[in-house]
Amino acid sequence: MLMQSSAIFSTKPAWAPTPRGVKSLYGTSSDDSNSMAATVPGPKWAQKTITLPPHHRGCHLVTSQILNQIRPDLSEFKCGLAHLFLQHTSASLTINENYDSDVRDDTETFLNKIVPEGRSAPWKHTLEGPDDMPAHIKSSMFGCALTIPITDGQLNMGTWQGIWLCEHRNAPTARRVVVTLNGIGI
Amino acid sequence: MLMQSSAIFSTKPAWAPTPRGVKSLYGTSSDDSNSMAATVPGPKWAQKTITLPPHHRGCHLVTSQILNQIRPDLSEFKCGLAHLFLQHTSASLTINENYDSDVRDDTETFLNKIVPEGRSAPWKHTLEGPDDMPAHIKSSMFGCALTIPITDGQLNMGTWQGIWLCEHRNAPTARRVVVTLNGIGI
Amino acid sequence: MLMQSSAIFSTKPAWAPTPRGVKSLYGTSSDDSNSMAATVPGPKWAQKTITLPPHHRGCHLVTSQILNQIRPDLSEFKCGLAHLFLQHTSASLTINENYDSDVRDDTETFLNKIVPEGRSAPWKHTLEGPDDMPAHIKSSMFGCALTIPITDGQLNMGTWQGIWLCEHRNAPTARRVVVTLNGIGI
Repeated sequence: MLMQSSAIFSTKPAWAPTPRGVKSLYGTSSDDSNSMAATVPGPKWAQKTITLPPHHRGCHLVTSQILNQIRPDLSEFKCGLAHLFLQHTSASLTINENYDSDVRDDTETFLNKIVPEGRSAPWKHTLEGPDDMPAHIKSSMFGCALTIPITDGQLNMGTWQGIWLCEHRNAPTARRVVVTLNGIGI
Repeated sequence: MLMQSSAIFSTKPAWAPTPRGVKSLYGTSSDDSNSMAATVPGPKWAQKTITLPPHHRGCHLVTSQILNQIRPDLSEFKCGLAHLFLQHTSASLTINENYDSDVRDDTETFLNKIVPEGRSAPWKHTLEGPDDMPAHIKSSMFGCALTIPITDGQLNMGTWQGIWLCEHRNAPTARRVVVTLNGIGI
Repeated sequence: MLMQSSAIFSTKPAWAPTPRGVKSLYGTSSDDSNSMAATVPGPKWAQKTITLPPHHRGCHLVTSQILNQIRPDLSEFKCGLAHLFLQHTSASLTINENYDSDVRDDTETFLNKIVPEGRSAPWKHTLEGPDDMPAHIKSSMFGCALTIPITDGQLNMGTWQGIWLCEHRNAPTARRVVVTLNGIGI
């Protein structure tokens, strides 16, 4: 959370000899937070908007892209929850297999099979192109948000789980994700 | 959270000259919370059950209906998460396009197309009417809960995002939503 | 959270006469937590990995199985959120009807109808068996995580809601769920 738009909220209790109030850190260096958190772990919040670069239509494994932008903050949580919120209505976030890219291709095949597009589709909303209304439907099918447990500074996913960005539009565009971390500091 | 069933939990730290414990507020005036929170922002919880009035079968934009019932509480959070939990199994909550009502109509068309209903449907569970089993399936497809980031007292959704209530039953009925707000006070 | 892998994080504020820092409890007896929480309720976290025994392919009501493994911890929260995270990509968690098992059977019928399997399926990913790729798709349709409000030490679900484990593979296997509880202590 070292970007301008980021904020770290670390709640630190009073201790002797001088009682102190909760201290909120807005975009301060995390070094200070680290050093203090080691002594007095308390409730902590961090929030940051990250950007995923444009991806072509289909399902993409983006675990590393996301971790690379939040790892320093994530590492400060002993236990908590990471919430990822995609601010768009024509793409989605889901958790699925992280190894074989065929699984992602097959999932895209499924989505296209189940949601009609083009001449055969019954949609009224067509002004933004034939891929737009199907994109909205797919977005609600898979959802735009994920909540993942944090344990010992890491996302506590299963061995084969990864975070997918599913881009449902034909034209690749950058996608914004609001990341909110909440938990107990290390 | 000024209704009888509401509760605000605001954790306030000790400060000079008298150290104080965490203070829990149950249905108290939020004025007190506001004034103190400005000085000593700390972890805060608020929980309230709101009711959405009956909606006819289909997808409905309910962002304003929800905000009107939680805005005073929401405005007290600098950073956090808002959790909305629909206490029903034949309707759903989803986030999708907030502008063109055709998108909502087309989504209802899709749901009806994908989940068979009536004579052609293979369902065993038919005692509650032909629309009941399809409603349960649609409820799990879109889900009954949303988690949305809070930033500076507002839901931090994308420009085109809104909250939809999807009513899957033919008979409109009021729907309960448990709203839980959690974060750092302003 | 009395298992070896569990942890309770209870934030307790300073109070007279001696200001104290936040206290983190790692796998300690919950008795201590209970007695203190009654006096000074504060932000609290608990996290635990539980195991659901093997279930045959289909949808299963597992509310009791889960509650039996988290009830003592859950009962310590006055207000909060329970997060359940299935660490697998070929099963799912959803909330749906808790009474008539026909609803679960019909939902399984729907999933099998909508996701092709076997000779008629277009999947590239077939090495792990004909049921594997359909299982991945179903997992993203229903999702692998749930967030449920906690009120007065209990999951605040609707009268007819229950937690379902949907097993999408033919071979039953035990499934791990990371449970994270967060809220204000009783």
